[in-house]
Amino acid sequence: MGYDSSAEVRNRVKELDLVDMLAKDLASSVSNSDIVFLSIPVGAIAAVGREVSESLKEGAIITDTGSVKLSVIADLEKVLPRNVHFIPAHPVAGTENSGPDAGFEELFIDRCCILTPGPNVDEASIERLASFWRSAGSWVEIMDAPHHDLVLAMTSHVPHLIAYSIVKTADDLEKVTESEVIKFAAGGFRDFTRIAASDPIMWRDVFLKNKEIVLEILGRFNEDLTALQKAIRWEDGETLEKIFSNTRKIRRSIIDAGQAEFEPEKALRINKK
Amino acid sequence: MGYDSSAEVRNRVKELDLVDMLAKDLASSVSNSDIVFLSIPVGAIAAVGREVSESLKEGAIITDTGSVKLSVIADLEKVLPRNVHFIPAHPVAGTENSGPDAGFEELFIDRCCILTPGPNVDEASIERLASFWRSAGSWVEIMDAPHHDLVLAMTSHVPHLIAYSIVKTADDLEKVTESEVIKFAAGGFRDFTRIAASDPIMWRDVFLKNKEIVLEILGRFNEDLTALQKAIRWEDGETLEKIFSNTRKIRRSIIDAGQAEFEPEKALRINKK
Repeated sequence: MGYDSSAEVRNRVKELDLVDMLAKDLASSVSNSDIVFLSIPVGAIAAVGREVSESLKEGAIITDTGSVKLSVIADLEKVLPRNVHFIPAHPVAGTENSGPDAGFEELFIDRCCILTPGPNVDEASIERLASFWRSAGSWVEIMDAPHHDLVLAMTSHVPHLIAYSIVKTADDLEKVTESEVIKFAAGGFRDFTRIAASDPIMWRDVFLKNKEIVLEILGRFNEDLTALQKAIRWEDGETLEKIFSNTRKIRRSIIDAGQAEFEPEKALRINKK
Repeated sequence: MGYDSSAEVRNRVKELDLVDMLAKDLASSVSNSDIVFLSIPVGAIAAVGREVSESLKEGAIITDTGSVKLSVIADLEKVLPRNVHFIPAHPVAGTENSGPDAGFEELFIDRCCILTPGPNVDEASIERLASFWRSAGSWVEIMDAPHHDLVLAMTSHVPHLIAYSIVKTADDLEKVTESEVIKFAAGGFRDFTRIAASDPIMWRDVFLKNKEIVLEILGRFNEDLTALQKAIRWEDGETLEKIFSNTRKIRRSIIDAGQAEFEPEKALRINKK
């Protein structure tokens, strides 16, 4: 059973045959469900949570897919009834594309889904949700919400902000044309443009909802970048070489862990079927 | 005919059967060549150029593959004899890997090779070098060297510096373990780790040799990032959303131009043959 607030999205979901049933409205989409997924920008969680809270079935699991967890918990804990099992979740998978056409079968395979349940949540419900994510191909990690928001600020939120920022710098550079930026993107720039093409609303909300931690990590990034900038200005080749040598080993570990591949072509191929 | 200053590299080149002949020393590797490629870090150009200059055949083309062009020109023009054709070149292609094992057949296909010849260079020699690069699958653009160094600072040098910097930030974050960074790299971080695994010596030299322009672009990037940081601090969602929406269109253009794919797996597969 699926529902989206946009009629256009609902029609496309029907065309792609993605759900067994499309609900007519938000309340009826959740009223008979064992597990309810709020797959929406984190800025919309409070309002949607309030709207569905009265229609949830007793004993249902309610979960989400947001990239920030403390704010989701703060927004939902005050509106959800006490007779449902609330288990915040974040599947760390995705591409820069969004909407019904952006899904593909392998999306969650070998990716991690993080659950951040509170201390008194029913163990059987946690296991039930974990087993759902495992059946999609993911492995599941339980984490506390503050740690989640820190780890993801480092590995996802700040990288996205930096990518958006450098694409803007290139876009504004009056002496370099857009067509030149595009032609020579293979020199490194294209790696940034992919994530800078991610959903604007989703990411606006992530930065507003994980504000303090993002600003903290951004401060640290600025210190590191300033040190590199100074090394260039003073032609301190030794410092540059030392830093550049250290960063190589992390990449090697990511490849060894099977987390390096990204194949947008594959996603497109599958959706064309 | 090939030569490398490292005996280890020369042995590996022989094992992989990459050249018809391996020279015993630098001078003999160039003395009978019609086209001489200096494929070395830009910081080594002056010394190697000086060493080969006396052994070059009259009328030979001498070229390079460096990512900075003004410094290569400054370093070589004072040492090269007047009876050779000097055509600086930059094939904008490559992966984070280097050395004889990092090459693969498709490396230059659909990538651009930029030539930055001076005003009085023999047209037939330019065409000869261009046709070499076309035979490797690239298309050729003629550009003046200062513009090359600006365009590449934006599309390649500064993106690499930022990638090195954020990988260092993650590496230093005491509350997040390296294994967490690796596990959750799929959230965006992995796109940065790839280019932060590039050759440390090559990149140290690029930043030192294109110092002024890199510092200028870095200054602009800092302004843009500071504006985003301020928008987050003041919870200015409208500004964030506007910037994030604009950057999406550039990605679309890069995909349309066929410059978006990167398949490290393919490179590995080919080398395993």
